Amino acid sequence: MRRSWATFAATLFFLCAVCCGASPAAQPPAKEAVLIVAFGTSVEKARVSYANVERQVKKAFPGREVRWAWTANSLLGTGSKNRPMLSTQEALAKLAAEGTKEVSILSLHIIPGAEYNDLSRTAAAFEGLPKGLRRVRLAPPLLYGTDSLRSVSRLLVQSVPAERKRDEAVLFVGHGTHHASGVYYPALQYYLHRLDGNAFVGTVEGDLDFEVVLKSLQAGGVRKVWLAPLMTVAGDHAANDLFGAGAESWRQRLIASGMQVQAIARGLGEYPAFVAQWLDGLKKLSDRGER
Amino acid sequence: MRRSWATFAATLFFLCAVCCGASPAAQPPAKEAVLIVAFGTSVEKARVSYANVERQVKKAFPGREVRWAWTANSLLGTGSKNRPMLSTQEALAKLAAEGTKEVSILSLHIIPGAEYNDLSRTAAAFEGLPKGLRRVRLAPPLLYGTDSLRSVSRLLVQSVPAERKRDEAVLFVGHGTHHASGVYYPALQYYLHRLDGNAFVGTVEGDLDFEVVLKSLQAGGVRKVWLAPLMTVAGDHAANDLFGAGAESWRQRLIASGMQVQAIARGLGEYPAFVAQWLDGLKKLSDRGER
Amino acid sequence: MRRSWATFAATLFFLCAVCCGASPAAQPPAKEAVLIVAFGTSVEKARVSYANVERQVKKAFPGREVRWAWTANSLLGTGSKNRPMLSTQEALAKLAAEGTKEVSILSLHIIPGAEYNDLSRTAAAFEGLPKGLRRVRLAPPLLYGTDSLRSVSRLLVQSVPAERKRDEAVLFVGHGTHHASGVYYPALQYYLHRLDGNAFVGTVEGDLDFEVVLKSLQAGGVRKVWLAPLMTVAGDHAANDLFGAGAESWRQRLIASGMQVQAIARGLGEYPAFVAQWLDGLKKLSDRGER
Amino acid sequence: MRRSWATFAATLFFLCAVCCGASPAAQPPAKEAVLIVAFGTSVEKARVSYANVERQVKKAFPGREVRWAWTANSLLGTGSKNRPMLSTQEALAKLAAEGTKEVSILSLHIIPGAEYNDLSRTAAAFEGLPKGLRRVRLAPPLLYGTDSLRSVSRLLVQSVPAERKRDEAVLFVGHGTHHASGVYYPALQYYLHRLDGNAFVGTVEGDLDFEVVLKSLQAGGVRKVWLAPLMTVAGDHAANDLFGAGAESWRQRLIASGMQVQAIARGLGEYPAFVAQWLDGLKKLSDRGER
Repeated sequence: MRRSWATFAATLFFLCAVCCGASPAAQPPAKEAVLIVAFGTSVEKARVSYANVERQVKKAFPGREVRWAWTANSLLGTGSKNRPMLSTQEALAKLAAEGTKEVSILSLHIIPGAEYNDLSRTAAAFEGLPKGLRRVRLAPPLLYGTDSLRSVSRLLVQSVPAERKRDEAVLFVGHGTHHASGVYYPALQYYLHRLDGNAFVGTVEGDLDFEVVLKSLQAGGVRKVWLAPLMTVAGDHAANDLFGAGAESWRQRLIASGMQVQAIARGLGEYPAFVAQWLDGLKKLSDRGER
Repeated sequence: MRRSWATFAATLFFLCAVCCGASPAAQPPAKEAVLIVAFGTSVEKARVSYANVERQVKKAFPGREVRWAWTANSLLGTGSKNRPMLSTQEALAKLAAEGTKEVSILSLHIIPGAEYNDLSRTAAAFEGLPKGLRRVRLAPPLLYGTDSLRSVSRLLVQSVPAERKRDEAVLFVGHGTHHASGVYYPALQYYLHRLDGNAFVGTVEGDLDFEVVLKSLQAGGVRKVWLAPLMTVAGDHAANDLFGAGAESWRQRLIASGMQVQAIARGLGEYPAFVAQWLDGLKKLSDRGER
Repeated sequence: MRRSWATFAATLFFLCAVCCGASPAAQPPAKEAVLIVAFGTSVEKARVSYANVERQVKKAFPGREVRWAWTANSLLGTGSKNRPMLSTQEALAKLAAEGTKEVSILSLHIIPGAEYNDLSRTAAAFEGLPKGLRRVRLAPPLLYGTDSLRSVSRLLVQSVPAERKRDEAVLFVGHGTHHASGVYYPALQYYLHRLDGNAFVGTVEGDLDFEVVLKSLQAGGVRKVWLAPLMTVAGDHAANDLFGAGAESWRQRLIASGMQVQAIARGLGEYPAFVAQWLDGLKKLSDRGER
Repeated sequence: MRRSWATFAATLFFLCAVCCGASPAAQPPAKEAVLIVAFGTSVEKARVSYANVERQVKKAFPGREVRWAWTANSLLGTGSKNRPMLSTQEALAKLAAEGTKEVSILSLHIIPGAEYNDLSRTAAAFEGLPKGLRRVRLAPPLLYGTDSLRSVSRLLVQSVPAERKRDEAVLFVGHGTHHASGVYYPALQYYLHRLDGNAFVGTVEGDLDFEVVLKSLQAGGVRKVWLAPLMTVAGDHAANDLFGAGAESWRQRLIASGMQVQAIARGLGEYPAFVAQWLDGLKKLSDRGER
């Protein structure tokens, strides 16, 4: 069958609309938008978390355009061919050029660390620029203040499969950070302990490292550990640092220390309850009209 | 003939590369760039000015990536299919995402008016953002301070065709503004008069309007006027407000006042001398390392 | 006579109240204030201008606290013993500590030059600081935009003593600047000429220097010049650069060029009409609620 | 005895120098300064802490001018007659007017809460102002990041009098906050527990309130509590909320719960070790040239 030029041109137009974002002329401009900002992931399977978040955001804010930006520079442009990932700056600039006036940013970060602070500076810089966004609000990360620690520690305990027995430990391992916001991990540990004496927090980097956690596990006479990522997606870090086959993974080191390990390989973004917690911050922002 | 999926995918890739801008992975990132910012024009013919500017910028800064942004929101997305025009914010965000570290902005504005001040605020907001541009410098518009008035008034007088006689007036008409920078037009008039008693400045909007200019022309007993745009491109304004067939154009009103009119329908961007003046500002910026 | 300790202590208290500014506790805090900012002057006689401005500001804004700041660092602390001059930063910080919430700054500068831009940055930095001023607005300098040039040129012509004859020149000499705002002087010259062919602008520094002005005067066959400062106060510059006995003063050089000189040794701040023009900017600010 | 005018005038000058701060002319300007910023206190006895801090700062930075500012607006102007307390803005503005170029701010706050963030915004606003401070650096509060939690928890345990027995609890009570930085208290609790199972953290406001702490004390079967302020000075809060005679004080409620209470009524600023910790932040700032 012969493909006529007209068909090809139509395809070309369609592709351009898809891959450039439809041109501003092509659709009535969305005036309000939600920009979901995540670190990004190169692990296809991990995107389940992101897709789940997007679905819930669209359900919660039906009238708003929903867009994505990734903060991991190395991952930009690695999206599927017809949807290259944008940086936060690019996504905000594009929304502004399309005529959007208000953007609420949902940050899929766990703590208000370096990434989150960068995001906060970028959001502030874009607010009120000439011919730009009138308002750019930023929702808090999952953990922000003691209220969030109280509720997230409860959600964490509830996320553990029912078959875990009380004398088995559950260990949530986050990225960790050398930023001052690293205090969120010990603070979370405090709240977890109030709920469950066998629930522990560890970090790949920073202060609650494997040695520290191991000592606590051993002090409690733990024999079996339910190991879960304290991460938005079960991506690279989860696959390697937590569950990897190498001797350096937390799983292997726990096993080497004589413990039995049960992996819970799901990112927090896969649980409706954690996404609801993130969205809660976004909704409060809108309700109070705060930045 | 059947088009295989592979062929289609390759085409898709090619089209995306063209219409999204080549992906950062596809080329070594340019570390330094010049961003030329203009109001934009919908008049195809007027783009001669812009093409000329781009050529000279590339010649003057051979190592740097050269990009464009338009400040007229209404014109964004009107570029040819495979090169949609970007806003200043989009162009800067894209350069940042590609790894560029320093951007020098060449503003093709005539005066430091509202557009230029907007540009200045945008440039300042992008400088030093996380994962962004380390430095964003902004060259002055064509007129900026008394030195520029002295040299531009000389260039204006030199731009007049040799066949103009001394008792014939030459009249340069700019957009004008209600911004405080409107003082540049009377100031330019002062310097023009020092060089040529029959050289005049007028503005479509603002204080040096047709009535004011006409009075001066009549006071000098002028019979013939060489009419030229004091604009970067000979675009919409030149075609309509200056040279239009309608009774309200400067040409028709001069004729109606009994004068002969000779049109000089070239934007300043078409003259190597004016482009050199703009580039001079950009070069000084680089030499002194100033912002 | 013996001075008792009680008397001495009372004096001490009184002096402290005077020289520190009355303590915040001592008076109900003024919620709105006008801060008059001037370069400052070391010439006692020139303060007549300042006193006149203060009187008119108080009359125009009866409910507001009125304060002063000087921008000339070298002059700070040179006020009379019981009223040391404050810098702009000090004056704003003091108002904030006393509980003032809104400050309108009246800048007694002639052009929006380096001093004025510094003031503008300082005002912006103080607005919205924690426990500080909610709003800091800055009125324009005497010359700001073409409207002001039109009205100030009229006031200048009207300020000339009635006994000046039309064929006698009147020459207004300002400080001048190497800042881009130097364009205000030639622009003012343009407007003055529209009103009076024998009215001239000169500057101590910058582009409209003595040689340039002299050439214009000679071209017009001028024999007598009414020489006036285009300055807020008739201070140092007026006394030395304009009217000084030294060969380099404008007066002496005009005389040496064969002209007769009549001095008008008053600062613009001494004329109700110019102060009204400054106040007009301040009032518009308040009316429109602008910054 | 007759007091001559000359003597009186000299006294006047002296008093002014004392109560206005010596005028800039009177002394060579200090180019670098340390500004100690504290909440302030109305309790005379509590100033022992402040005096101790000042002594140690002067010893650590012998070449620098040392100044104070208080952040409690209600306390400004309550200093002794000849040394009224300045707000942070006033203190910075005064240093700038005197010609100081660099200021390092030592914040005597415990956590990076609302007060500290206000201070940070003020410091940033003053840096780089025209004719102002070239650099304004801000040292961290006592607790900032996990490293500080580790060392401060050690200092806290060491600060307890030797006669305390291991089965007696020690309870450090801070102001608390509803700001997100409230997470520092549970995080500190985590680190304290790593060192001493009977060391507790409580807060007057916020999440680690009396009920929560009491439950922990009772769970541990505690009979005697060493009660200490986790505050810079043993001021109002310590005197009333902790040790007050009223039924609502922590001491009375502990007693009412059947425990014996031993008060440690010293502010952290009275201990060389804590002041050294604060100063450590200030020194690191200087060493690394950081902001």
